[in-house]
Amino acid sequence: MSHAISPLASPFPALPAIAGATPRVARARYKEWDRCDLTYVELDENTAVAGVFTRNICCSSEVELGRLNVKQGRARALIVNAGNSNAFTGYRGREAVEQIMDQVAAHLGCAREQVFVSSTGVIGVPLPKDKAKEGVDNALTAAPCSWEDAANTIGTTDTFAKGATATAIVGGQTVTFSAIIKGSGMIAPDMATMLGYIFTDAAINPAYLQELLTKAANETFNCITVDSDTSTSDTVLAFATGRAGNTIINCEGCEGADAFAAALSDVCRQLAHLVVKDGEGAQKFIAVSVTGAVSDESARKIGMAIANSPLVKTAIAGEDANWGRIVMAVGKAGEPADRDKLSIGFGGVWQAKDGQPLPDYDEAPVAAHLKGQEISIEVDIGLGEGRATVWTCDLTHGYISINADYRS
Amino acid sequence: MSHAISPLASPFPALPAIAGATPRVARARYKEWDRCDLTYVELDENTAVAGVFTRNICCSSEVELGRLNVKQGRARALIVNAGNSNAFTGYRGREAVEQIMDQVAAHLGCAREQVFVSSTGVIGVPLPKDKAKEGVDNALTAAPCSWEDAANTIGTTDTFAKGATATAIVGGQTVTFSAIIKGSGMIAPDMATMLGYIFTDAAINPAYLQELLTKAANETFNCITVDSDTSTSDTVLAFATGRAGNTIINCEGCEGADAFAAALSDVCRQLAHLVVKDGEGAQKFIAVSVTGAVSDESARKIGMAIANSPLVKTAIAGEDANWGRIVMAVGKAGEPADRDKLSIGFGGVWQAKDGQPLPDYDEAPVAAHLKGQEISIEVDIGLGEGRATVWTCDLTHGYISINADYRS
Repeated sequence: MSHAISPLASPFPALPAIAGATPRVARARYKEWDRCDLTYVELDENTAVAGVFTRNICCSSEVELGRLNVKQGRARALIVNAGNSNAFTGYRGREAVEQIMDQVAAHLGCAREQVFVSSTGVIGVPLPKDKAKEGVDNALTAAPCSWEDAANTIGTTDTFAKGATATAIVGGQTVTFSAIIKGSGMIAPDMATMLGYIFTDAAINPAYLQELLTKAANETFNCITVDSDTSTSDTVLAFATGRAGNTIINCEGCEGADAFAAALSDVCRQLAHLVVKDGEGAQKFIAVSVTGAVSDESARKIGMAIANSPLVKTAIAGEDANWGRIVMAVGKAGEPADRDKLSIGFGGVWQAKDGQPLPDYDEAPVAAHLKGQEISIEVDIGLGEGRATVWTCDLTHGYISINADYRS
Repeated sequence: MSHAISPLASPFPALPAIAGATPRVARARYKEWDRCDLTYVELDENTAVAGVFTRNICCSSEVELGRLNVKQGRARALIVNAGNSNAFTGYRGREAVEQIMDQVAAHLGCAREQVFVSSTGVIGVPLPKDKAKEGVDNALTAAPCSWEDAANTIGTTDTFAKGATATAIVGGQTVTFSAIIKGSGMIAPDMATMLGYIFTDAAINPAYLQELLTKAANETFNCITVDSDTSTSDTVLAFATGRAGNTIINCEGCEGADAFAAALSDVCRQLAHLVVKDGEGAQKFIAVSVTGAVSDESARKIGMAIANSPLVKTAIAGEDANWGRIVMAVGKAGEPADRDKLSIGFGGVWQAKDGQPLPDYDEAPVAAHLKGQEISIEVDIGLGEGRATVWTCDLTHGYISINADYRS
């Protein structure tokens, strides 16, 4: 955590323990640093697992194996390596992951497929097997630690530790979520990746957990962008230990399913926002709300075109209500839009309506809004009922310094 | 031209006069500035015209009318307004363009459709009709000027005037091209747009000129990116006066068609490179060559994903041979690629082959190459015969300063 703490950082929340999920950390010394860099979470038998992974086709072996193994639905352990992403390392990288899976499976007496491994850090250097072996040995026998320790240990260029929690009532029973995430820019300098882990004591069918996680991810993790770049290792895993004692959640409409889904979605949104708030160089958190598109997906694409536009992001950094750049971004999104039906606002104040600037537009409240840390941009396409909100941060000198100047 | 001159600037070349195309400039005073900002080029009767325009669907009235009128194939005049893009201004903006077309058409005694108008500058402010009228009046009666004067007059945030020339032998006759362009970032702060104008004395059928211009633009203007943002007003027009006395070029394979096409393509490439070299904050010119893709179009898309990646562009700014970021960009391009067949090099030196870093890779020549101003990135996908080269610039503090800090 070499850079200044993000001005948008929040304190780490009090994350409850999750029965059946025990975190431990250790030192594998993947880099020359004096910190824990290997995280191990032991999970009770019958823990359900679901996962969403990067769409980047040059993904790491960790992602390939995770995507495959999540299908059998059960997990006994999670290992996270920080400091080396093991991406673009060919068969040697794959062997290192398989060695870790075997080592943990032997310790727990479980199937290798129930051990999930993630790695984050430098690309193109195979994960050193000897360091991994020693680190895993240490972690397997370490004392249990807090979720905050685990959140710090999975971090690389993150400037603050990130966690989220929620509860839901399922059939009269309270189920609890504790979740951690790392990420700061889609890829940080030679480091990589957003990695998120959600732990709950709820009992839930793994296929249904997967369905809910995919849906929640589409509305949260897939609606954030820092720099439009997609890591080779992005991973979010949800683990449900079943220890809360609720009647198992099996499908849509069954008791507590809605409450569980809402809490899961809430946790995902909290985690996604935290990653944006630690975006490289971020000074402002930006919510882009698009309404009136021809569909929700069209609204999301238009929102992402705005959120990914360097000119929009630098305008917000400059506290400039530059709606012309938003017009430009809407027009290049490749989605249905009509220049003469487009309306644009900042902080709830419309600046342009139906394709023309409002003659009586009052700049003062907009200028005040743009001086704050939480910025909202509203865009109405004027064509339909589709809507979406996406989140990003501004583009500042800090981003350039982190990504271009760090060698000096 | 308020910013420091680009370190990649070149001196304005000696552009020959083109028989039948006479430039003049005047002051319309669209902004509070002491410079000419209205350009008028009078064209001989029967001048052939072709054009390519922005794909941004929130385009200006100038683009809408130009796209429509280019179809009749003949031009008598070009008017370019600098300082106001007239984009996103509804019917009032359209009326201003039509007024200019009528005014020039009355003066020349030609059809209104033969008057082409472009505007570049602030978005969302209708072009003031009174200023336009007076500026056009002045320009119609001004003394002819040089192409360099015209290049300076169409510029907005450009840091240097940009021109290109070429010749071709068509049926024993020399035909000459003189061309000017403005652009610096796809949209500059509150200013906009790449506008390019190519003048030749060749005699050519307008439909065939359109075919050749579209093809040349696809390989040049559509292969550059500064910041991935697409202006609402981008326009390139080619005018052929027919005064060279060559046998008219009518179709592919006819005498001189290949030579003409090559010269046109050469001029387009020169102009496109000049825009990149004046990219906002640019310190380095980057050529990305992609080979081994499944098709040329696939290679172009992969190249653009690399050229648009903020992480790749900041790495080059930092003189860092960060091939991991190129792997990432290839993987997110959405085109066929195989991690284990991918090879990446800088300045002609392969750094990774077949999905793995080369163990005996020599960093010294790559480090030396990256210290230069002209950088090449080579990517071989290893799947087919598709190839493309795209051009961009690095992403520096200068870009942020120009686009975020300019209000201070």
